[in-house]
Amino acid sequence: MHAVTIVDGVLQWLEHPDPEPGRGEVLVSVAAAGVNAADLLQLRGLYPAPAGSPADIPGLEFAGEVVGSGPGAGRFAVGDRVMSICGGGGQAQLVAVPESSLLRVPKGIPWFEAGGFPEAFSTAHDALFSQAHLRAGERVLISGAAGGVGSAAVQLAHAAGATVVASVRSVSHHGQVGSLGADLVIEPGQVADHGPYDVSLELVGAPGVTAALPLLAIGGRIIVIGVGAGAKFELNLLALMGSRATIGGSTLRSRSEDDKAAVAHAVEEHVVPLLASGSVAVPVAHQLPMAVAAEAYERFAAGGKFGKIVLVNR
Amino acid sequence: MHAVTIVDGVLQWLEHPDPEPGRGEVLVSVAAAGVNAADLLQLRGLYPAPAGSPADIPGLEFAGEVVGSGPGAGRFAVGDRVMSICGGGGQAQLVAVPESSLLRVPKGIPWFEAGGFPEAFSTAHDALFSQAHLRAGERVLISGAAGGVGSAAVQLAHAAGATVVASVRSVSHHGQVGSLGADLVIEPGQVADHGPYDVSLELVGAPGVTAALPLLAIGGRIIVIGVGAGAKFELNLLALMGSRATIGGSTLRSRSEDDKAAVAHAVEEHVVPLLASGSVAVPVAHQLPMAVAAEAYERFAAGGKFGKIVLVNR
Repeated sequence: MHAVTIVDGVLQWLEHPDPEPGRGEVLVSVAAAGVNAADLLQLRGLYPAPAGSPADIPGLEFAGEVVGSGPGAGRFAVGDRVMSICGGGGQAQLVAVPESSLLRVPKGIPWFEAGGFPEAFSTAHDALFSQAHLRAGERVLISGAAGGVGSAAVQLAHAAGATVVASVRSVSHHGQVGSLGADLVIEPGQVADHGPYDVSLELVGAPGVTAALPLLAIGGRIIVIGVGAGAKFELNLLALMGSRATIGGSTLRSRSEDDKAAVAHAVEEHVVPLLASGSVAVPVAHQLPMAVAAEAYERFAAGGKFGKIVLVNR
Repeated sequence: MHAVTIVDGVLQWLEHPDPEPGRGEVLVSVAAAGVNAADLLQLRGLYPAPAGSPADIPGLEFAGEVVGSGPGAGRFAVGDRVMSICGGGGQAQLVAVPESSLLRVPKGIPWFEAGGFPEAFSTAHDALFSQAHLRAGERVLISGAAGGVGSAAVQLAHAAGATVVASVRSVSHHGQVGSLGADLVIEPGQVADHGPYDVSLELVGAPGVTAALPLLAIGGRIIVIGVGAGAKFELNLLALMGSRATIGGSTLRSRSEDDKAAVAHAVEEHVVPLLASGSVAVPVAHQLPMAVAAEAYERFAAGGKFGKIVLVNR
């Protein structure tokens, strides 16, 4: 097979041995695979793949057709349309992953949307509901709401009956984020005018935490899943004590296979039905052939887009 | 009535008008009232009483007999033995409090123990269970475990089936804390040798948070309810993200009447039965007459004790 390959900090489209599905694993012929910020960090040597994933093939999510199964794997048949997060290696013609992590692609969802679904929606759902316990009627602040995870979070929080305040730096995207279900779309400098917040989903980093902390409602929760703008700040514990607030953080990639299976199960139960019914959708800004991944990464790095960049094999 | 009174930073035993029970309130003749760290802060002008509480009479907990009721209060009869947390004013001959906050004193529990029960056990129960969601089989680190809240927390965590690691600075108290149900009693410098911890109950402040953060289990929770050793530190959000950990804080004193009633209800249901059965007890180091509160405060400030200091009226 061919795969997007990191060679000395540069992306190439190179031949590799076909992966073999191990015990409990399924082999998938990849049709589409989303590009994520973690891929760019990995390219720069800043975010090594976890143990068990190929070190030189990026890609944290994909969609495609089942073409084989390893011993003990029986949930899927050849030809089934599936999608999944993975520890790495998704940007290839073939990938072998635990069948416990696979989701079925609903009828009518094209490959390029399915390939950009798993990472953003799994991350957003896990952070909002499994970590922050967002409930209907609560007010949630979502930073970086025009990005992949942010736009997924806006849709999921809206679908769950929360009041959504979306913070988006680029005013040109405010209308699009509003159309996803945000009750209010604001610039980052305006967060102080629209609290208090029961939940703050922080995708940008320490400056957002500092801004949100004094704006939390009693029992408020900040969940940090991105620190691109900085990871460190001086925390005053008294600010947490007065409002009985918590600051938490989360990542998906480093989790155990069992933990990832639990995330997939929650997404299968609570999010895939919303995708099938059209209540949530995957905004896709660009789709490009996998063989020109370098160009896709450049467009991702340039920013200013609304929606995912997805690599496609067909 | 007479009450312990703060006059220009000094404690006196002065006459005040008798308090009148308002709507939904009960008037209690105070038999005993515990001394807490917050009282000493209030004496030094660092912790003003919340709105609705007397500004110059300290005391966050008390036990005594019901002597009257305001309009709409019907849960208790004259002569009932009750105990409660309050926003202030507990160190007096009479106190009027919402009946929703009152707990019945179990038979056989003497006044001096009942007067030292509500604050420590309400604080510890709320922090461990309502805030940190401690569950049976989890491993909990409790700092300052020889103090009032710490010794209550050790007993409650043990009774709930958790494995308790108690951190106590003074080696002379290690045996007593062990007898409360701690599985392991260590010095603060040894916390790194006995993790990972599912929950860290931090009674001392920022240095304890810094020490516990890298020792948390996946999904670990730090709850801070005391910051005597400092409230500020540099937080690296990546440390939270990797272990899906949270840092939270809490106080009881500033809560609304409804929130305090909810705490009292939880304590009535889950903790008072343990006190009645002897599964938990209130260690009392000293009891002194309320008229010599200044001496009791001096003993509290001197430290080195094991158990509560309680003021008694009879």
